[in-house]
Amino acid sequence: MSEYVAPLKEMQFVLRELVGLESIAALPGHEEVGEELAGAILEEASKFAAGVLSPLNAVGDREGARWVDGEVRTAPGWKVAYDQFCAGGWHALSGSTEFGGQGLPRVVSSLAEEMWNGANMAFAVGIMLTRGAIEALELCGSDDQKAMYLPRLVSGEWTGTMNLTEPQAGSDLSAVRSRAVPQPDGSYKVHGQKIFITYGEHDLTPNIVHLVLARTPGAPEGVKGISLFVVPKFLVNRDGSLGRRNDVRCVSIEHKLGIHASPTAVLAFGDNEGATGWLIGKENHGLEYMFIMMNAARYSVGLEGVGLCERAYQRARDYARGRLQGVEPGGKSREKVAIVRHPDVRRMLLEMKSRTESLRVLASVVAEAMDVAHGNPDEEVRRERQAFVNLMIPVVKGWSTETSVHVASLGIQIHGGMGYIEETGAAQHLRDARITTIYEGTTGIQAADLIGRKITRDGGHAAKKVLQEMSAVQKQLKSMGAADHAALATRLLAGISSLRLCVEFILDQNDSNPKAAAACAVPMLELFGIVAGGWQMARAALAAHSCLQQDNSDAEFLQAKQLCARFYADHVLSKAPALADTILHGADAVLAYPEEQF
Amino acid sequence: MSEYVAPLKEMQFVLRELVGLESIAALPGHEEVGEELAGAILEEASKFAAGVLSPLNAVGDREGARWVDGEVRTAPGWKVAYDQFCAGGWHALSGSTEFGGQGLPRVVSSLAEEMWNGANMAFAVGIMLTRGAIEALELCGSDDQKAMYLPRLVSGEWTGTMNLTEPQAGSDLSAVRSRAVPQPDGSYKVHGQKIFITYGEHDLTPNIVHLVLARTPGAPEGVKGISLFVVPKFLVNRDGSLGRRNDVRCVSIEHKLGIHASPTAVLAFGDNEGATGWLIGKENHGLEYMFIMMNAARYSVGLEGVGLCERAYQRARDYARGRLQGVEPGGKSREKVAIVRHPDVRRMLLEMKSRTESLRVLASVVAEAMDVAHGNPDEEVRRERQAFVNLMIPVVKGWSTETSVHVASLGIQIHGGMGYIEETGAAQHLRDARITTIYEGTTGIQAADLIGRKITRDGGHAAKKVLQEMSAVQKQLKSMGAADHAALATRLLAGISSLRLCVEFILDQNDSNPKAAAACAVPMLELFGIVAGGWQMARAALAAHSCLQQDNSDAEFLQAKQLCARFYADHVLSKAPALADTILHGADAVLAYPEEQF
Repeated sequence: MSEYVAPLKEMQFVLRELVGLESIAALPGHEEVGEELAGAILEEASKFAAGVLSPLNAVGDREGARWVDGEVRTAPGWKVAYDQFCAGGWHALSGSTEFGGQGLPRVVSSLAEEMWNGANMAFAVGIMLTRGAIEALELCGSDDQKAMYLPRLVSGEWTGTMNLTEPQAGSDLSAVRSRAVPQPDGSYKVHGQKIFITYGEHDLTPNIVHLVLARTPGAPEGVKGISLFVVPKFLVNRDGSLGRRNDVRCVSIEHKLGIHASPTAVLAFGDNEGATGWLIGKENHGLEYMFIMMNAARYSVGLEGVGLCERAYQRARDYARGRLQGVEPGGKSREKVAIVRHPDVRRMLLEMKSRTESLRVLASVVAEAMDVAHGNPDEEVRRERQAFVNLMIPVVKGWSTETSVHVASLGIQIHGGMGYIEETGAAQHLRDARITTIYEGTTGIQAADLIGRKITRDGGHAAKKVLQEMSAVQKQLKSMGAADHAALATRLLAGISSLRLCVEFILDQNDSNPKAAAACAVPMLELFGIVAGGWQMARAALAAHSCLQQDNSDAEFLQAKQLCARFYADHVLSKAPALADTILHGADAVLAYPEEQF
Repeated sequence: MSEYVAPLKEMQFVLRELVGLESIAALPGHEEVGEELAGAILEEASKFAAGVLSPLNAVGDREGARWVDGEVRTAPGWKVAYDQFCAGGWHALSGSTEFGGQGLPRVVSSLAEEMWNGANMAFAVGIMLTRGAIEALELCGSDDQKAMYLPRLVSGEWTGTMNLTEPQAGSDLSAVRSRAVPQPDGSYKVHGQKIFITYGEHDLTPNIVHLVLARTPGAPEGVKGISLFVVPKFLVNRDGSLGRRNDVRCVSIEHKLGIHASPTAVLAFGDNEGATGWLIGKENHGLEYMFIMMNAARYSVGLEGVGLCERAYQRARDYARGRLQGVEPGGKSREKVAIVRHPDVRRMLLEMKSRTESLRVLASVVAEAMDVAHGNPDEEVRRERQAFVNLMIPVVKGWSTETSVHVASLGIQIHGGMGYIEETGAAQHLRDARITTIYEGTTGIQAADLIGRKITRDGGHAAKKVLQEMSAVQKQLKSMGAADHAALATRLLAGISSLRLCVEFILDQNDSNPKAAAACAVPMLELFGIVAGGWQMARAALAAHSCLQQDNSDAEFLQAKQLCARFYADHVLSKAPALADTILHGADAVLAYPEEQF
């Protein structure tokens, strides 16, 4: 079975040509990050991904995590790999240097993160949740809390979880019922049941730091009465040693379609004396803090999508190169050829590859903006870049994940009957991908965020700024001579026009007719994703063209990059006008259909 | 867990308004088939589907079929259900009366078949394969063979299989290597290994009738040297009793993504003395005969798609009605509402429902054509209807199945996190659906058949005839006043124009530039499916409108039908022009991309 190989050349092209690594290196704290260091880190990361994580992916799927009497045993090999991961410093890659992290810019760490996900998403998702907990504590925790938890979360000695969902509170967090009662010593007793807690219980580390949403007595109803608590599995003594077991138990783990090796726990808090927890920040601000974790986590789930796309593509490509079936189409020879020669298989591979590339560049451009928004000395620049990040996070999350389901399914298709056999491995990618459009906010929630907040709240300012940037690229493309560029420019123009029209439509509808806007929110997210992807593929094509002018030594790669963009234009970006049609006219039937007739 | 409920009202609407059951009843042999009889049969079938087959669906998925020492044990309850199925006469529904069948028209039996698939596809697929074997024997077998096998296949006392695939011969049957050596007594000794044999071994019946592709000594290479043999698991004595065990063994069964209860066997023929088989028809005509089974089977796989769509829709709808989450969008009340009230959930449900309806009507119209092509006294009519059937089979197969994957995935999405939990049942539908775009010819193979044979071989005659029929419906729609009809008429016009353009393009390219045609074959199949679905939704809307004029007693249902068509127009049919764009311009990048750069 083929192992994951990180697409280093693609990633280096992105870092060198499309995100301006030098400008990141100019930011305070990132002075050492040049192309060489980034390249060295990614190369080492690729070895770990291929050598350690990838071989465990099928084992994890087959064996899964097992629940026995409240304890969870991870799949064979998991703990050793986790220890190696931490020992190699990979856990601390983007953590703050103050707490032992390496403080690497997001534009580099996001590519490493894509690798972990490509190699073994069920492994990577645990790391991702810990990073979310780190961010929340770093930004909202007290100094004592930071000192107690952050060094050991950053190093990976302990892991972290996010405890939001309850049986009656999924997408709707206002329905959270868990409660936290203040104690004389300043702590709280937490009671309630949380479900769908990723790595909520496991045997990888001696302690687990749960961040938990709950209500204090007398708190307002709805989302304004939710507070955030830190509830460690084992209480921590003043000297940092582990104290007694807290009153939080893993009642069961779920039997899921995919990511079998990632234990999804039902956690019972306070079945006995109450779970001891401590308030993070202020009471009733829990949702706000949780959104800090959530935005980071949403972006990371987008990277899960990118990693899975790449993985599914690689497996399908390797199969297509090796599988002999049929003769050369239109040829005279009766010799069997590899199916990669059949036009329909090439079409599927390019559909997978071009979409994957578009998502990777888009995610990297957003990571670059995160770095600038975090470190640029100019406040105006920081603000503007943060607005871009905020706008794009639902797109990166929603669109990368929806695409990963599509791409993983195509990966099965290329394998034919073999794709349906579990041992082949292609099916696992679809099963794994299928959660990504659901957790950390479904695609519907991302789309509601996109149209209801990100596009609308600033009066369309951030969205229109992106449209301007897209148009500038389109104009540059149009001025070039080649046929591939002209085709791309035409489609991009149509895409940008479609998106502009729909942004105006959303701005117009969101207040006056919010149901109509909501009815086309997901098609709007799809349109945004497709056009933003086209924008980045156009930038990639321009960069490849410019590199070719300067140096002809890697001509095939650079020409292929332009062809890949051309494919994207004719097969993916071409869908934009039709989506606009649906967005502009599609709400009537959705809203008018009588409920009883479903 | 909710059980499958056959959509009887929808089916009756199709039979009454859209396929002209009376004209079918006018055909020789179908004189007794009126609305009443058909209704009674479908109602009984729905009880069996809901009461017997549906409750076994989850059990079958969980327990699967088990292989032990060459024997296969089907899932608990399977054999009892199979015996009941046969005892109820369901197996013989569309079988020829000459051999004990009920000879029901396809337009009725196809709806019953949709029910079996909706309730339990892993069960239904076994029946489907047997029916394929019946058709091949009926049309190509000798009188002795018919007498020996047909009565017991029609009744379901024995089952049948199709043995095409070998490890090196999947989509490419020219690579078949199994061989059959003639014996002095007129029989053959068959040797070879066949894979992916659906119900190739099981404990439901005392005998299994394998139809096997193999080569005789000295046969021409490629597909012109393949013959078809009947190889029973147990030889049959002259008196009809079972004789000795034949030399065919089940070596293993596959561990698959879905349809776990359907045993997919690796069969070894002739590991010892050679498996005894008998030639069906003439030597070297095997592929031609196999295509008889295959066309019937392809249509039936299309019905699997329809059944799965309906099943996934029902489960998602039931969940959406019961799950409280969030408040009324745009409303002031803080009361939680069922998610069916949220516009995005309604959009997904209508996407599922409208597509399902379009597929059902399309499949029924093709079934109607099969009945006419079989039974109409006028040869010209028969020929013309058969051409329509031939044209549409790859569309029904390819498009219903691709849609079922999409619809089943939406079904998971509507469930949110619960959709990812296996016990919920939504995930099984996606896992089951995922095989349908692969077996009996992948979507790529269907698309190649559509453009390379069905559209091209008669110079576009059959395709253009369908386009004319579509245009007539469009004109009728345009002449109506209502807004929903106008929107539908506009989209249908764009769809028909797109399809016409692409049919011309295919006719032009197929000989001169076959690779370019092949590169856009699947988008062409998708376009054909979407526009054909729009054509049928338009017919349904017109029929609903006309019914409303005559009788207002079921106004909500009839109005909803028109809204559903309107939804289809704005959300599905709207994609047609973009697909045409891809078909007309999308080949360049596919063909130019350098193989080494994948």
